[in-house]
Amino acid sequence: MKVSDIGECQLIDQLNKLLHQGTDETTPARQNLILDIGDDAAVFRPQGYQLVTVDSLIENVHFNRSMLNWADLGYKALAINLSDIAAMGGVPQYAIVNIDLPPDTLVSSVTDCYNAMRSLADKYQTAIIAGDTNQSSLINLAVTLLGSAENPDKLLTRNTALPGQKIAVTGYLGNAAAGLDMLLNQTKVPDESREIFCRSFYRPEPRINEARLLVKEGARCCIDISDGLAADLLHILRQSRVSARIELERLPVHPSLRLCYPLQAQHMALYGGEDYELLFTAPAKVIEQISAQSGIPVTIIGEIIPGKPDELKLVDKDGRALQPEKNGWEHFKKPK
Amino acid sequence: MKVSDIGECQLIDQLNKLLHQGTDETTPARQNLILDIGDDAAVFRPQGYQLVTVDSLIENVHFNRSMLNWADLGYKALAINLSDIAAMGGVPQYAIVNIDLPPDTLVSSVTDCYNAMRSLADKYQTAIIAGDTNQSSLINLAVTLLGSAENPDKLLTRNTALPGQKIAVTGYLGNAAAGLDMLLNQTKVPDESREIFCRSFYRPEPRINEARLLVKEGARCCIDISDGLAADLLHILRQSRVSARIELERLPVHPSLRLCYPLQAQHMALYGGEDYELLFTAPAKVIEQISAQSGIPVTIIGEIIPGKPDELKLVDKDGRALQPEKNGWEHFKKPK
Repeated sequence: MKVSDIGECQLIDQLNKLLHQGTDETTPARQNLILDIGDDAAVFRPQGYQLVTVDSLIENVHFNRSMLNWADLGYKALAINLSDIAAMGGVPQYAIVNIDLPPDTLVSSVTDCYNAMRSLADKYQTAIIAGDTNQSSLINLAVTLLGSAENPDKLLTRNTALPGQKIAVTGYLGNAAAGLDMLLNQTKVPDESREIFCRSFYRPEPRINEARLLVKEGARCCIDISDGLAADLLHILRQSRVSARIELERLPVHPSLRLCYPLQAQHMALYGGEDYELLFTAPAKVIEQISAQSGIPVTIIGEIIPGKPDELKLVDKDGRALQPEKNGWEHFKKPK
Repeated sequence: MKVSDIGECQLIDQLNKLLHQGTDETTPARQNLILDIGDDAAVFRPQGYQLVTVDSLIENVHFNRSMLNWADLGYKALAINLSDIAAMGGVPQYAIVNIDLPPDTLVSSVTDCYNAMRSLADKYQTAIIAGDTNQSSLINLAVTLLGSAENPDKLLTRNTALPGQKIAVTGYLGNAAAGLDMLLNQTKVPDESREIFCRSFYRPEPRINEARLLVKEGARCCIDISDGLAADLLHILRQSRVSARIELERLPVHPSLRLCYPLQAQHMALYGGEDYELLFTAPAKVIEQISAQSGIPVTIIGEIIPGKPDELKLVDKDGRALQPEKNGWEHFKKPK
């Protein structure tokens, strides 16, 4: 059955049912929800300070229809927004989903997509409360995510890095780039590694819990890595008006990545995007405390130093300086 | 200059400047803004209850590139969202803009689009605080709009129509359908009429002020007319579990529409979409009070009666019943 067979109204009815089946009405998001899907706008009672972010996945830019797994699409569209709320130290609350679909899309594809979004939303106590469905020749899934923060003084921002602070990241870097490489080039790697890389690319885990730990321990400066470590670090450096020194040997490269891409692993960790790990700065002691409580690796990779943002220093294991590439993903620019 | 010549980062810098030049920092939205464009999320101090809605304009569905006026596109994308907040009786506060652009788009086209959004946002004291720019082969402009309401008991919803209440609309109906007809079929009409129709289609005025009047005078049930009077009335009837009787002779048809489309004017008023007028129900006395204070026409067109939602009664000037068509715009469905 295609969406053109049932039309927008019936499709919305189906999605609405899917989003309401067995919801946990005791979550703060649901408890504060006054008016859900079905009117001109959704209405809720806000808590603390309000955070808002938007991010979308677009056919032929972020994915291709021929290899599309709809559940992965739904998962990732929400995950990358959860990652943005995490990077601010916030608690996610409400998602608003705007989906554009070709009329010949299977209804089951759309429900696969929403089921995956719903599962991830449930995991982080986020309610999907509004949205819009449109026909289009291109698939486009845009999610707006609202979150809350108790106190604006505890937000994680990009402009609070200070010389002397250490720079750290959660998890491993470069695995998503390996996942993309396998997708584009069908690179042969052992099954176990393939699973790790694909999971990183298709199903990144938003670091909501780790970000809350950052807030609790007093970190103030954070960004999530979507465009690549080097490119995203530059956002922090520019907004904080500082420079940084990164020790390449310290980059957390997963053993599988080192095994499968021995010559490229470090490069992928530095410039590959879409890992959706947290990149943050804090005094060494604070990072130790975070690391001790975190269920995932937290790795110090360098430090903030005085200087111009564009003078990022990369040093290899022998202390030799390397020239950084300008190599993060940027929309509209032709790849060099 | 094309957006591919400057890339995403420079484009965002330019748009950011445009959105901040000469902003009125004394508006409630700006006063409560903690963190603007430039971090992983925007942050604000919420006021009262929070409303949220999203709506988008998509190439080849809502407009065609060959006839695209970018300023009109920007205006309309925001206006249709303001209209949704109006239909809830809310005060608009913050807009989040998600724009997808082909790389060969002129930078000046994008700034035209944002300048028009900015003007309309300023008119209704709305701050554009976040967004996302993506490359895509199709132009797509999605706006998420946040608004506030003092009291959930004063919201305008779709499920509060009661038998005995009158049904009223603001402004004129069918003019936007005439604007679309001229666009698609180059229909010849006098210049003055053309201007009225095109303005209705390209530059609908969101009925924010009129909606506030509805709230003040105690109306409770409202929707904005985006899919056509008949289709949008059906939303109210279904959610309120009532029926309605509409007197066709009472539909507010502009003299220009009657003149240029003598045989179709009534049909366009009933089934044409995109007028973005308010359709609401209230006791006759309340509507009189609203009408007396409104700067635009407020017209009673029928009344709510007990019955099944799908048994909408249309009567002509001689009291004869007419069969309603199922004729509102619905995504994915092939036009009959």
